[in-house]
Amino acid sequence: MSRLFNFCAGPAALPQTVLERARDEMLDWQGRGLSVMEMSHRSEAFISIAEQAEADLRSLLAIPDHYKVLFMQGGASSQFAMLPLNLGGQGGTANYIYTGIWGQKAIQEGQRYLPTHLAASSEANGLTRVPTPSEIQLSTDAAYLHYTSNETIGGLQFDYIPEVSDDLPLVCDMSSDILSGPIDVSRFGVIYAGAQKNIGPAGLTLVIIREDLLDRAQAQTPTMFQYRVCADHASMYNTPPTFAWYLAGLVFDWLKNEVGGLEAMAQINQRKAARLYHTIDTLDFYSNPIAKPNRSQMNVPFRLADASLEKTFLKEAEAAGLLNLAGHRSVGGMRASLYNAVPEAAVDALTAFMTDFAHKWG
Amino acid sequence: MSRLFNFCAGPAALPQTVLERARDEMLDWQGRGLSVMEMSHRSEAFISIAEQAEADLRSLLAIPDHYKVLFMQGGASSQFAMLPLNLGGQGGTANYIYTGIWGQKAIQEGQRYLPTHLAASSEANGLTRVPTPSEIQLSTDAAYLHYTSNETIGGLQFDYIPEVSDDLPLVCDMSSDILSGPIDVSRFGVIYAGAQKNIGPAGLTLVIIREDLLDRAQAQTPTMFQYRVCADHASMYNTPPTFAWYLAGLVFDWLKNEVGGLEAMAQINQRKAARLYHTIDTLDFYSNPIAKPNRSQMNVPFRLADASLEKTFLKEAEAAGLLNLAGHRSVGGMRASLYNAVPEAAVDALTAFMTDFAHKWG
Repeated sequence: MSRLFNFCAGPAALPQTVLERARDEMLDWQGRGLSVMEMSHRSEAFISIAEQAEADLRSLLAIPDHYKVLFMQGGASSQFAMLPLNLGGQGGTANYIYTGIWGQKAIQEGQRYLPTHLAASSEANGLTRVPTPSEIQLSTDAAYLHYTSNETIGGLQFDYIPEVSDDLPLVCDMSSDILSGPIDVSRFGVIYAGAQKNIGPAGLTLVIIREDLLDRAQAQTPTMFQYRVCADHASMYNTPPTFAWYLAGLVFDWLKNEVGGLEAMAQINQRKAARLYHTIDTLDFYSNPIAKPNRSQMNVPFRLADASLEKTFLKEAEAAGLLNLAGHRSVGGMRASLYNAVPEAAVDALTAFMTDFAHKWG
Repeated sequence: MSRLFNFCAGPAALPQTVLERARDEMLDWQGRGLSVMEMSHRSEAFISIAEQAEADLRSLLAIPDHYKVLFMQGGASSQFAMLPLNLGGQGGTANYIYTGIWGQKAIQEGQRYLPTHLAASSEANGLTRVPTPSEIQLSTDAAYLHYTSNETIGGLQFDYIPEVSDDLPLVCDMSSDILSGPIDVSRFGVIYAGAQKNIGPAGLTLVIIREDLLDRAQAQTPTMFQYRVCADHASMYNTPPTFAWYLAGLVFDWLKNEVGGLEAMAQINQRKAARLYHTIDTLDFYSNPIAKPNRSQMNVPFRLADASLEKTFLKEAEAAGLLNLAGHRSVGGMRASLYNAVPEAAVDALTAFMTDFAHKWG
């Protein structure tokens, strides 16, 4: 068995020790005689797994007590509908900041359930920098302000949290940068994230929501889409994705006890991103279009000066054990995702390969 | 490591060879250098896993070509809303047969999106037998007829498929008996099932739908709830629960190549159920209230003549390596679930234990 370096944008690399624990416990979890997958979600054993995962997540992110943590299904794409459905029961206008493809999808689905207002947009600068605080113009009757902290495809990341008044819920899609460093949860009304980047396997969606926002749902909201129902049943109104929840718990445990918490994780992530952007910037052979303060630490898209070499680059990279470096099918080019579980050694190997490749073909 | 016998109603036992393969491939799937969990859902490797799973399922159930197979999320509880939303766009009345708690939940959610009509009910007989064909009375403008082929909590299973006219979609919640034997898919408009009994781990939901039903959705249906969207994107409109899909594929492979198909599976299941009901019927110490033709082969609820011995029964059973025999918290008593992955040896051990227990305490 040999593990290769995996730069996939998601589902993404997981920490090796997490996979090893999952492997070792697959047929018999802690001497109980069955797999976690085979446990009733209402059993004492699984409840202990679920509660430990939530406790570790709360500890990592310092989540205040008046926030609920929901373990849901359906990915961020389901949240795009759940948000206007759950926060739009009192009417108002859904406000959005547009910085890329995922934000756009959130807007398109939001328009189906509430009037929407584009509070700010990066369209004019070609999605290469995020709007400044002064460029954000809210509507008068805003139900919430939604933004995407990190655009996975464009590689564009907010370097600040938008300031809003206390009575306006700030909503953030953190699918691709949650847990990459500390955040001030108290600034947000709702944070949500698909699991398959920094949390665990696909099929789990995290929602962190301020309790006072649980009772604003539109009447048409499906029961399984209601945050209130999920919160009141401790995310077990029906059978949750138990194995994905367990694996997320292993990742939280790894972050807390092996990495040493989110400050330590942030320093590692900063080093990884700095190393890769340095390689891109110092070799004319590569380029990245994003304004430096908004360059994503998680997803680094880059182009070759000679686009005809892209296939050769990907082929030689794969032969060198560097997987999944193709850009998103909608934009092409290259992309290296540097999520938490991508080790510094992977970035060392990638930058060495990129340097060699540039010298060979440049 | 020792594997115990697990009679859990769901999430339920999985075949040991499936768990062993998942364990062995956990860090490196077929020499690719990464886990299935870490693969892009759009990679050639994962597409091959996904397509093989669907092909094996189609082969097992002999699914006709004009049916789509959807790999969704959210469990049967999400389907309770998806059905009236997806099939109610032309108006009409949702018809339901009520035979237990799960059917009731389907009705309650259905009422939120369509007028409903109770076409038949087992309420008058205390949920102990299913309605006869002549007892099913449809409304004139039926949009569909929904029933629950096996009530997991009550242990009540249909012994026939309701007859409907060609233009009325028959919809069935088969969460707890799908794949327990052959079925004639062509009789149905929609079949759906949560995975966590006979398919794989929780977090995956199967939908088998006749293609002509894909375009009847109500306008308000969230994009992620639309069968048409899911079908047009081969269940990859967004990131699917890849690892659960892979495990379902391993279960399908096990059914096909180790068990030998659904006829063989049905014979094993008949033997298991017959053995347990025989023990219940021949010892006055135990009882099951269900009419014999409608006794579930998957979930066998039973009571002790002396209810004060229930805790002792569960405690001694667990000490004997027989797990999860408590009845559903809403009804109490005992329940043994005999899904596909529960081996005949488990039923032998259970019936031997029950006989000994009856002699000791009876």
